[in-house]
Amino acid sequence: MTDFHTLTRELQRQNDSKIVLLVADGLGGLPLEAGGLTELETASTPSLDALAKAGTLGLSTPVLPGISPGSGPGHLGLFGYDPLQYQIGRGVLEALGIDFELGPNDVAIRGNFCTVDNAGTITDRRAGRIASEIAAKLCEKLDGITIPGVEVFVRHVKEYRLVIVFRAAGLGGDVADTDPQKTGVPALDPVGKDPASQKTAEVAKQFLAQAREVLKNDAPANFLTMRGIDKKPAVPPYSEVYGLKAAAIAVYPMYRGLARLVGMDVLDAGQTLNDQMDRLKAAWNDYDFFFIHFKYTDSTGEDGNFPEKVRRIEELDAAIPRITSLNPTVFMVTGDHSTPSLMKSHSWHPVPVLLSAATCRPDRCQEFGESECIMGGLGQFPAKYLMGFALAHAGRLEKFGA
Amino acid sequence: MTDFHTLTRELQRQNDSKIVLLVADGLGGLPLEAGGLTELETASTPSLDALAKAGTLGLSTPVLPGISPGSGPGHLGLFGYDPLQYQIGRGVLEALGIDFELGPNDVAIRGNFCTVDNAGTITDRRAGRIASEIAAKLCEKLDGITIPGVEVFVRHVKEYRLVIVFRAAGLGGDVADTDPQKTGVPALDPVGKDPASQKTAEVAKQFLAQAREVLKNDAPANFLTMRGIDKKPAVPPYSEVYGLKAAAIAVYPMYRGLARLVGMDVLDAGQTLNDQMDRLKAAWNDYDFFFIHFKYTDSTGEDGNFPEKVRRIEELDAAIPRITSLNPTVFMVTGDHSTPSLMKSHSWHPVPVLLSAATCRPDRCQEFGESECIMGGLGQFPAKYLMGFALAHAGRLEKFGA
Repeated sequence: MTDFHTLTRELQRQNDSKIVLLVADGLGGLPLEAGGLTELETASTPSLDALAKAGTLGLSTPVLPGISPGSGPGHLGLFGYDPLQYQIGRGVLEALGIDFELGPNDVAIRGNFCTVDNAGTITDRRAGRIASEIAAKLCEKLDGITIPGVEVFVRHVKEYRLVIVFRAAGLGGDVADTDPQKTGVPALDPVGKDPASQKTAEVAKQFLAQAREVLKNDAPANFLTMRGIDKKPAVPPYSEVYGLKAAAIAVYPMYRGLARLVGMDVLDAGQTLNDQMDRLKAAWNDYDFFFIHFKYTDSTGEDGNFPEKVRRIEELDAAIPRITSLNPTVFMVTGDHSTPSLMKSHSWHPVPVLLSAATCRPDRCQEFGESECIMGGLGQFPAKYLMGFALAHAGRLEKFGA
Repeated sequence: MTDFHTLTRELQRQNDSKIVLLVADGLGGLPLEAGGLTELETASTPSLDALAKAGTLGLSTPVLPGISPGSGPGHLGLFGYDPLQYQIGRGVLEALGIDFELGPNDVAIRGNFCTVDNAGTITDRRAGRIASEIAAKLCEKLDGITIPGVEVFVRHVKEYRLVIVFRAAGLGGDVADTDPQKTGVPALDPVGKDPASQKTAEVAKQFLAQAREVLKNDAPANFLTMRGIDKKPAVPPYSEVYGLKAAAIAVYPMYRGLARLVGMDVLDAGQTLNDQMDRLKAAWNDYDFFFIHFKYTDSTGEDGNFPEKVRRIEELDAAIPRITSLNPTVFMVTGDHSTPSLMKSHSWHPVPVLLSAATCRPDRCQEFGESECIMGGLGQFPAKYLMGFALAHAGRLEKFGA
């Protein structure tokens, strides 16, 4: 079937254009009171408003109407990949989130330390929310486990959470969780759903048997359960589907990992937005496409901190001139999903999109905000098509058919 | 799968309604300066504005967001066919463009006269852009080539371009180009990608061997290359998918050919818009559906001639009363794609759509223009669904389900 990437593969053309995708994580919001303004509408954003006036606005639907996406599907959509076609397992996302570089032979697993009694029955699924320092040491011990023919990696994430990676050719990624999701029962045995995954299940069993021995005196963290056992999806890279040499400038590891998944180079982003802007400028001549990630619009939304989310949007607005001064051919500002402070969570609300380019057809929008975006020239569209607009405005697509 | 045509096949119903689709080729545009008006917004269009006020506006996406379509996919979309499902090869389009009626056993090929040296190496891929009169004579010579069991047609198009058609049962349409896309090398041998296409490749080889002999003294046009070798796609006709008896009134052969592809009768359109209107009136009682094609909004856009595109839109507007006076049940005015004068090319920008019918739900649009269309009641929609609106407003679709 001829899909979007079939077209972009076939029609892509090279030129000197530069595309910037600035993702303000969880950008979309809600007013705190009926008739009020959202966080984005409340914020004073002179730079974004100027871009909105000259450019084109719209609203994107990350996955499907009503579906609140996680960071994985949210970003894959923005990168132009159908989030329903390319699904990222929990173990893979957890590994991406600690900058673990997954290869094609890797099976990634999210582990949870737990407490078991003498009979092996789980009494606490989170090992008393064990402190990170202790858990990190236990992970080092587990990392010493050896299984013939398989490389084993164990890395700590946070508190009771860890990542286990098995590396060997021929391991399948379809293995059921061992976490029984309740206490009072033993952990389940790993079961693979096909022959290759059965091999993985056997490796997991050996690992768990050794882990039980290694951790036997480490109560409350005297065992662990496994969840989201999966391989990374085979995502065709940016260079192939778009002909773009792409770079990611993201402070948080999860977003670097998502960018790596689609074949972007991951640049040192430093710690602050200013560091990111320095990096953008320094790398400007080396890439066609830049993905810049700003986390704090999401984390403040998750915290339910409306004024702080407003302040973070204003902080982002102040950085905009550092991008526009580089004269990108196409400059897009959007989010991977909405995170209304009112809801303290990701939501399904469509996400404001701003696209700025010389070939924008004017709409009547005067500033960047959710209500204004409803009247934008991009309309409401699936996020996975944003890259279509970007490539078109960058002059990077030939005509389809004659 | 239940797709759009499954539904229209199942739900279609006959009545006395008349549907008119007026295609102003390349209608959509861009302002020349930021904050300015497009060609359509600049033009004085009292008749279209009156229709817009009473009817419903919208914007259509011909193929997918960001994709600039050629005339083929652009029109197939307007006719209600998914342009990604029904793809038209270059050879087929070239044959349609010279009014050559392709049958189901025909393989159409675009030929380019070229210059080769004694060793058969291509020295000029366009035979010095040979004059049309000379090339036409060479095509007559080539038309005399005979191949046992195959009817051979050679027709001149323009300058170095020609069309070759092989007619025989069992010939496949998947043959690689023989044009090597560069000079300094010989033309490639035709290679078929499946057994039926291999038969076509063998026919092409025989043709090329004879052509080399026929043209040997005709330098710079002493050989030819082949491109876009294809059969016409098996498009289910209007009569079947919509239950419509349809007629095309188009001055240019390419659009007559596209209409023929979907089973429309092609009427004599004369040379002018006025001739087309005369024909429409004369044929009014004989058909359910009329496709009227107006070329000059595209050609002036391609020329980058903003004021002339404006003037052509005004010319079209002046003809509108000749259509409305016939009281069509549904009257649609749109384009097959945008052709902004600013870009001198087809573009991906969504296309203004105007639908006028007694059952239109009012929107707040006051005139026909791109910015106004953003707020139109049809919203932004894939062009392939326009025929759904048309059939519905014509009362030609039963209810789906009980």
